[in-house]
Amino acid sequence: MAGAAPKAVVLLSGGLDSATCLAIARDEGFAPYALSFAYGQRHGPELDAARRVAGALGAAAHHVARIDLAAFGGSALTGDIPVPKSDTVDGIGDEIPVTYVPARNTIFLSFAVAWAEVLGSRDLFIGVNALDYSGYPDCRPEFLEAFETVANLGTKAGVEGDRFRVHAPLLRMTKAEIIRRGAALGVDYGLTHSCYDPDPRGRACGRCDSCLLRRKGFVEAGVPDPTTYARA
Amino acid sequence: MAGAAPKAVVLLSGGLDSATCLAIARDEGFAPYALSFAYGQRHGPELDAARRVAGALGAAAHHVARIDLAAFGGSALTGDIPVPKSDTVDGIGDEIPVTYVPARNTIFLSFAVAWAEVLGSRDLFIGVNALDYSGYPDCRPEFLEAFETVANLGTKAGVEGDRFRVHAPLLRMTKAEIIRRGAALGVDYGLTHSCYDPDPRGRACGRCDSCLLRRKGFVEAGVPDPTTYARA
Repeated sequence: MAGAAPKAVVLLSGGLDSATCLAIARDEGFAPYALSFAYGQRHGPELDAARRVAGALGAAAHHVARIDLAAFGGSALTGDIPVPKSDTVDGIGDEIPVTYVPARNTIFLSFAVAWAEVLGSRDLFIGVNALDYSGYPDCRPEFLEAFETVANLGTKAGVEGDRFRVHAPLLRMTKAEIIRRGAALGVDYGLTHSCYDPDPRGRACGRCDSCLLRRKGFVEAGVPDPTTYARA
Repeated sequence: MAGAAPKAVVLLSGGLDSATCLAIARDEGFAPYALSFAYGQRHGPELDAARRVAGALGAAAHHVARIDLAAFGGSALTGDIPVPKSDTVDGIGDEIPVTYVPARNTIFLSFAVAWAEVLGSRDLFIGVNALDYSGYPDCRPEFLEAFETVANLGTKAGVEGDRFRVHAPLLRMTKAEIIRRGAALGVDYGLTHSCYDPDPRGRACGRCDSCLLRRKGFVEAGVPDPTTYARA
């Protein structure tokens, strides 16, 4: 009865977290509509990963929205600011780093609401995490709650029909817990891409925040890391 | 001392309301950064109008963001659904019409916050109006307040610095009051475009909700209407 499954719009970057989030949405009985953004990110390989993940995990549809956040700048992920590198995870999350992209999740969720409204869906999934994360303000539960209010006040569907719900199933999980959950759900993490600053061949740098958190997660989960790092 | 004026991001559709809103922002002492969207709207002439208005009213900058809301559909303004026509304003605002674009103002404000954060601005202006309007949910004060909360929780600037403010100076004004205010501030309404369904030459239809409210406003304001309507 796949045709009867309620639809959910799932934000899919192509990284480890959003792939797991997609698998959880499907496991919870939703037909996942995956939404990715070509927003001017330097780590373009994540979009290829998103396409692979959407296909492998059986998304009902996958839409890549093209928006230009590089025009505004203000982030290492869209501009000329170098991506910080380190050998350890110490200090990650203490301050909002230069890889923060202004209002990114607000923009992404806005598009998700628009698509959900047209699809007749009331469920949005976002793979944010407030434990092993980079300290971005738009990954916190209070932000997600506020956005849910906006979705319900600012749409025809929210005003006239059922309420929108923003699901963040990874919010309170460690990276290791996320990986174990995803592995149990059959996620092939070899398809995903996390690195903020891949080399020209698309290989992960191994030393940006995103790589460091990913590597630590696989070690702690006791799951083999399928990632090819440019620097081991 | 124009260089010392605080910056504000002003959403500028190219219509009567947003042009007036831009003039008000400038009159209140802000350096206005105008933000428009090529979102797949059928009334493309409004973007030409936005460029004219931004120039004439002395915007500090004008950015046109390209996003594809037509890909999602669900609106007469981006798809094949006909724009409703009438000879009177009776009934406008009673129900949310098919010209509603899913989550449009949420998306527009999200981009405005992103740009404002990079500019070092904390002030967003939006020309929504809850009296002579089409009944869109994302034009109501409770939506704007909720969005302000999102902006302050979901950004580095909101978390670490001053609060964002969403200004909606037209919210409680009638269309006639808006026109009188704009005329007093030197807005040339001949530069603006309101029609949802212009003819191939860009002339206003005179019978969509937006034309009807505009025409009624000029009559009530006692200000000559500079608009060329395809049908008088």
